[in-house]
Amino acid sequence: MSAPKARFEALAALIGAQNVMGESKDMAAFAEEPRRLYNAQPSFVLTPTSVEDVQKIMVWANENAVAVIPQGGNTGLVGGQVPLDGGEVIISLKKLKAVRDIDPATNVMIVEAGTTVLETQQIAEEKNRLFPLSLGSEGSCQIGGILSTNAGGTAVLAYGNSRDLCMGVEAVLADGRLYNGLSKLRKDNTGYDLKDLLVGAEGTLGIITAASLKLFPRPTTFETALLNIENPQAGVEVLEMVRRKSGNKVTSFEVLPTLGIELQIKHGLAERDPRASASPWHILMEYSLFDGEEPGALMSTLEALFEAELISDASVCQSLADRKMMWLMRENYAECQTREAEGIKHDISVPVKNIPELIERGDAMAEKVIPGIRSFAFGHMGDGNIHYDFLAPIDMPKGELRGHAAALHDGMYEIVDDLNGSISAEHGIGQMKAGLLQQKKDPVALDMMYSIKQALDPKGILNPGKVLSRRN
Amino acid sequence: MSAPKARFEALAALIGAQNVMGESKDMAAFAEEPRRLYNAQPSFVLTPTSVEDVQKIMVWANENAVAVIPQGGNTGLVGGQVPLDGGEVIISLKKLKAVRDIDPATNVMIVEAGTTVLETQQIAEEKNRLFPLSLGSEGSCQIGGILSTNAGGTAVLAYGNSRDLCMGVEAVLADGRLYNGLSKLRKDNTGYDLKDLLVGAEGTLGIITAASLKLFPRPTTFETALLNIENPQAGVEVLEMVRRKSGNKVTSFEVLPTLGIELQIKHGLAERDPRASASPWHILMEYSLFDGEEPGALMSTLEALFEAELISDASVCQSLADRKMMWLMRENYAECQTREAEGIKHDISVPVKNIPELIERGDAMAEKVIPGIRSFAFGHMGDGNIHYDFLAPIDMPKGELRGHAAALHDGMYEIVDDLNGSISAEHGIGQMKAGLLQQKKDPVALDMMYSIKQALDPKGILNPGKVLSRRN
Repeated sequence: MSAPKARFEALAALIGAQNVMGESKDMAAFAEEPRRLYNAQPSFVLTPTSVEDVQKIMVWANENAVAVIPQGGNTGLVGGQVPLDGGEVIISLKKLKAVRDIDPATNVMIVEAGTTVLETQQIAEEKNRLFPLSLGSEGSCQIGGILSTNAGGTAVLAYGNSRDLCMGVEAVLADGRLYNGLSKLRKDNTGYDLKDLLVGAEGTLGIITAASLKLFPRPTTFETALLNIENPQAGVEVLEMVRRKSGNKVTSFEVLPTLGIELQIKHGLAERDPRASASPWHILMEYSLFDGEEPGALMSTLEALFEAELISDASVCQSLADRKMMWLMRENYAECQTREAEGIKHDISVPVKNIPELIERGDAMAEKVIPGIRSFAFGHMGDGNIHYDFLAPIDMPKGELRGHAAALHDGMYEIVDDLNGSISAEHGIGQMKAGLLQQKKDPVALDMMYSIKQALDPKGILNPGKVLSRRN
Repeated sequence: MSAPKARFEALAALIGAQNVMGESKDMAAFAEEPRRLYNAQPSFVLTPTSVEDVQKIMVWANENAVAVIPQGGNTGLVGGQVPLDGGEVIISLKKLKAVRDIDPATNVMIVEAGTTVLETQQIAEEKNRLFPLSLGSEGSCQIGGILSTNAGGTAVLAYGNSRDLCMGVEAVLADGRLYNGLSKLRKDNTGYDLKDLLVGAEGTLGIITAASLKLFPRPTTFETALLNIENPQAGVEVLEMVRRKSGNKVTSFEVLPTLGIELQIKHGLAERDPRASASPWHILMEYSLFDGEEPGALMSTLEALFEAELISDASVCQSLADRKMMWLMRENYAECQTREAEGIKHDISVPVKNIPELIERGDAMAEKVIPGIRSFAFGHMGDGNIHYDFLAPIDMPKGELRGHAAALHDGMYEIVDDLNGSISAEHGIGQMKAGLLQQKKDPVALDMMYSIKQALDPKGILNPGKVLSRRN
């Protein structure tokens, strides 16, 4: 029996042949990530149906020193969930979907890793609760994946990242042991915070199999508007006034260059122009109101913003259909770029105060590298997280932009460094930025990470080479 | 030169003789904690004046394998900040008080570890911002200490624990290297979450020297009331309705047995009776409102609670003086016990839903151990955190209660276990609960903690024996 054949048999005996794939055609959906940037092939894709089976796999992997890659909905954008070396075993958590507990009085639910974010939102809604994580890929991405990558989204300003929405996890460790940290407690000071170590570790310290998630009261009304602002600095000032006036009512605050709306109109992505009038920049802002609250809070804030001359106009949603259209427009900020031209993307964050300087310096740097390049900086201004993309100049031949990618990246990350920012705000490190992390991260922090990795995964079999590049 | 003398000289040469204490009378204020439960003596107390000096101390301690204990305001209640073995060196961070940065637009400030919580609140207030951590000892406890212990307090329901209020830390490691994680970023997915590993580690993994802290908009109005409820179950239902109606307006939700008010009146701690009428239980509830919000939200919720027959009466604060009196009454829930009788205390948490069962079973258990014992369960119902104390029966001779402590603790922690609770909600483990943690914590979690401790402090010189007892 050949070595691959013997391994297939061994895995099939452990978790059932129907849960083991070894053929390229079966594995393609797991091996290829959304942007198709990586080509290494896994040896097997496993779809265990129970936590015990995940443990069995890890006992086997540990004994045989086999590298494994945990995978959720395969929506990650930095190659964390697909092979790096080739030959790794992908463990898809998609079949772990049990809702283990839902406790509305405590505002907690416990679901298994394979539950999608959309399913989680729906289960919460059935109990009149909100699970506030909201992001473009919510129909596919899974709880295990969003926690492993500490995903963000459009409600972070009010509710925090995935990390903040999680009270505890269950995880299979490198040697197959099960860590049970499925706490339903908001306060529990009994030793080191292992939950937050596993969250955001991109599957390099353990495989999250279930999580206990925070629920929130469900808003009964949303008040949504698209504001016209002159420039990003006005956006920072609007945010300041909005928070002062509304406290926690403001749940989304997205900065949008008007170019994105123009491109959506040009490429047939927009039903109608959502802008009240022309303006170089916009803010998409949303207030969430509860059962006992009077409507009109947003209008009253808008009046104050007009008076202070911080906004010049605003388009206020008058119906649920309006709101839906507005959020679709926000989501299309990715697609309209794809349709228009080739682009170079950055997922970065800086202190909110520094956003105007980031955009000013970033634009100048890019114009110097490629005259006529089109700046396309948008995203979660309330959290300092900008998706800073650049579109090829209108007349640039196809394929030419890529040659400038390194210069643009270097220039951008230098500015980010200067402004005390992060090279990865919400997408993580994966394989794409593992080298960059070595250059940019505090070396003492890197040393601490290596020590922790060594302590919890001494054989280096959990998603090797991701987050932390190998050291000699 | 004697060995202690030589060490004194060495330390004096490193950080200046004026920052080294070796005499018992000078060290007493650092060696003795609030409840005077521990008696071991330090060899020296050091008060370094710079981060560099903390690093020098740790290089020296690492070379000489000297155990050190980081200390903040010395307000901890579990003996984490005082000697265990005797002979340890206490490093007080009290002289590190610089405000390194205050950035209201980003809603962040960076302060050094020795800044008290009260000072931090005041610095934020000067910039029209709120630093929401609020607890009894805020005039003394320091940022380094509250982060190392992940302190809670009365605003956790809305703002979270100390952990949630911190965006990053700077810390001196066991070998004297400096970890710089003073991020001002709300989103930063670049590797493992080292901040949350250091926060709550009680100084066993590193010495926090500075922290970057979240600021919030400052509420302009507080609406505060003392509600009458029949029992804890009604409290859980009130909380549910309050959150549904108000979303994030409710910033405090404290459950209080009426016995505490009676004892305050009896012992001259209360100016006047704050209750609207007699009731076995109360909820102290507060709404925080912002600049742009109409007053009256609390009154409208109270009307709904009356209609639903969840509360029987309420005393609503009419002035700032009223509010101050009400919160003083809340704080005196500790002092009135001390004046009345000897007591046995527990700082525990359970899922909010389980609080009524916790109190029912806890009371029955205690009555069985000591007939006539007085139950005194109060605290942060919104977070599931109950300070479950018991007062000696009225006729019990002084000194007798102590003999029953073990039986009461065992009974209580068994119930807590049963209800998926925590043996330490907000006070931490220190030396008091290090043995208990070994019995109660998931053994895999304990193993992970030991591995991490070994990785980051291989010589075991950072606060040894705290949190994690020594293993053979």
